[in-house]
Amino acid sequence: MVEKINFIVKDKSFEKFMMMVILGTTGGAMDMEMNFFFTFWGLYLLKKKHKPKVAGMPFPMKGMATRMFKKRLKKFGLENSWELIKEAIEDGKMKLYPCQMTMDLMGIKREEMWDFIEEPIGAAAFLEMGEDAKIVSL
Amino acid sequence: MVEKINFIVKDKSFEKFMMMVILGTTGGAMDMEMNFFFTFWGLYLLKKKHKPKVAGMPFPMKGMATRMFKKRLKKFGLENSWELIKEAIEDGKMKLYPCQMTMDLMGIKREEMWDFIEEPIGAAAFLEMGEDAKIVSL
Amino acid sequence: MVEKINFIVKDKSFEKFMMMVILGTTGGAMDMEMNFFFTFWGLYLLKKKHKPKVAGMPFPMKGMATRMFKKRLKKFGLENSWELIKEAIEDGKMKLYPCQMTMDLMGIKREEMWDFIEEPIGAAAFLEMGEDAKIVSL
Repeated sequence: MVEKINFIVKDKSFEKFMMMVILGTTGGAMDMEMNFFFTFWGLYLLKKKHKPKVAGMPFPMKGMATRMFKKRLKKFGLENSWELIKEAIEDGKMKLYPCQMTMDLMGIKREEMWDFIEEPIGAAAFLEMGEDAKIVSL
Repeated sequence: MVEKINFIVKDKSFEKFMMMVILGTTGGAMDMEMNFFFTFWGLYLLKKKHKPKVAGMPFPMKGMATRMFKKRLKKFGLENSWELIKEAIEDGKMKLYPCQMTMDLMGIKREEMWDFIEEPIGAAAFLEMGEDAKIVSL
Repeated sequence: MVEKINFIVKDKSFEKFMMMVILGTTGGAMDMEMNFFFTFWGLYLLKKKHKPKVAGMPFPMKGMATRMFKKRLKKFGLENSWELIKEAIEDGKMKLYPCQMTMDLMGIKREEMWDFIEEPIGAAAFLEMGEDAKIVSL
């Protein structure tokens, strides 16, 4: 049986973005199905214009910490995270689903988000596709 | 087999409250058992007097964002969240459990909380009732 | 079958530390395998010098709230949390794994962390050892 993990992503931080990239592409390379359901602030991670910032630092250090992390991620070959995600999506191993209801709630439109994500779904569809999966809220 | 999801709720924010309402009532309507275990700040969500505030916004916008979200939720029929929760509880599909130990730790009393929730339980009882369930920490 | 729960710990707060202690030692006492994978700020919880602070309170109350919680935890016999964790580890019921990649990313060294934790592992190893387990991101 193919292992399947359905993640809930509810924050827009750099940390949550990197957890999504690392778990999603690693699991994908291990032939696992990695699905991500983005809700509330997590939807920002799917916006083409959003630049995730480090959340775990007080305000004046946020920008600096984000730059430092990005620089260090280069040595892991992770500087082009969206390229890695796109590859995993094309291989059919990773799928990104925006939550329709919170999109409406927060006034976020489909066209603000990347093209290569799935069509928006609701909570019922998310729960249904999780029946044979683990569910992890990042 | 009836699907069963046991959630851990550890924050008192509006976002976590809405995730609880939407996942709990949606899963309940799909005939799933949806249990919620409230610990630490999550216990505040069970207090009759607590008004959840949006967490994902800096301080001066919190109040405004909360009001705006509430207004928009009306169009989804979600303005009376506690009514929806009560219905799901009466249908036997949703159960809310406060964590006894963190109640003591934080000085929160049973009578400050809604009547229709379950009696407080400890971590051992929570883990035991999760054996045949998924566990998701919101 | 022995129940097994693999937790992801990504924050350095007092609340997350206490959730780890309570769930880990309670599950351990119930003969469950409780594994914890520490990533990003969660790694701080493994540092010998780190003193976790309450996260769910605004800045000026953090210190006070932490002291108050610690005092109250004494009546639950939880004041020596690391002693309890060490016992659970020695009994083979609890295992703490630092994430190698985020250690490098954040510049945290093995020798800054407690001796009794496991050797660092990567995301692939974490996903692999989760195949027959529940995965919960605290």
